[in-house]
Amino acid sequence: MRILVVGASGTIGEKVTESLASRHEVFRAGRNGADVSVDIMSPESISDMYKTIGPVDAVINASGGANFKSVPELTPELNEKGIESKLKGQVNLVLLGQEYMNDYGSFTLTTGVMMDDPIPFGSSAAMANGGIKAFVASAAIELPRGIRINSVSPNIVQESWDRIGHLFAGFTPVPAEHVARGYLKSVEGAQTGQNYNMY
Amino acid sequence: MRILVVGASGTIGEKVTESLASRHEVFRAGRNGADVSVDIMSPESISDMYKTIGPVDAVINASGGANFKSVPELTPELNEKGIESKLKGQVNLVLLGQEYMNDYGSFTLTTGVMMDDPIPFGSSAAMANGGIKAFVASAAIELPRGIRINSVSPNIVQESWDRIGHLFAGFTPVPAEHVARGYLKSVEGAQTGQNYNMY
Repeated sequence: MRILVVGASGTIGEKVTESLASRHEVFRAGRNGADVSVDIMSPESISDMYKTIGPVDAVINASGGANFKSVPELTPELNEKGIESKLKGQVNLVLLGQEYMNDYGSFTLTTGVMMDDPIPFGSSAAMANGGIKAFVASAAIELPRGIRINSVSPNIVQESWDRIGHLFAGFTPVPAEHVARGYLKSVEGAQTGQNYNMY
Repeated sequence: MRILVVGASGTIGEKVTESLASRHEVFRAGRNGADVSVDIMSPESISDMYKTIGPVDAVINASGGANFKSVPELTPELNEKGIESKLKGQVNLVLLGQEYMNDYGSFTLTTGVMMDDPIPFGSSAAMANGGIKAFVASAAIELPRGIRINSVSPNIVQESWDRIGHLFAGFTPVPAEHVARGYLKSVEGAQTGQNYNMY
């Protein structure tokens, strides 16, 4: 398969790319992507990326961010990063990518554990994750030509524990390699409309 | 209690207002609100509304829209209504309203059945609803001074069946009065972080 991985150089994106590269032709995208550059906050940049890469059999997104602020400190302005990047960035990868997706191809987006199990400072990220999960379930019933769509919800990964583990009190971190299997299930499996909790 | 109902003249907002008015001081807000006008897509308009009404014990939102389009027809531009109105409009009612909320007050937002049970043309609305549900669960752990937050997920209501029932094949519509009880539970009850499925 021709597989486009957006966010390929991130902690999770790297493991996903590693696990696919031996069996598939993988294109690595990101802000400074090895194969193609993209800013998912810009619909124009997303369209340019698809024009450069051409038809694909799978698109995986492992990128997208949100500001971490407590609700009393969260402003409409600070909430925009989650809206523009993690939410709209991912939705637009689907809306603008559907014409480049081969029959029976798949989109795989990323949500996150804090939508199910709230953490301090996580409400903007949770909002974006919950939006993606519901969009995926709904888009799955309408995508044409056998195209599938799923999301993966990563737990906090061991590789990020030193940096942000203090926000995840009582969570058991998992290896990024474990999370990567959710993306594999989406791409090489046959399900659609699912959110895989890799907890 | 001093209760602000945004979207008070809508099908659900009207029933909510009716069920509260005998026991509480209710302020009706909306695009042409009886007591105060507000465009929830404008943070400035939301702030002006709160300045006009002053401190409140409860804010209920029963407004917010999204475009109904199939995924192949949905564009980033058409998805903006759901983002700006149903998603950001509701989140901003909380972010900008928290300083006007009295101790132990409550916010009650609106999601919708299509986030759980996808319908044709519903993916933009589902996205917004899923975002609100996750935001509510997360914001509940951080709102200060005993302030609570919940959402209500209305099923398709009997009053809208003639107009949009064709999109809800196999659903059993419920009276708007049934949905209104979810808002009552949120305002007069004591729970927080919940999404009440009024199905």
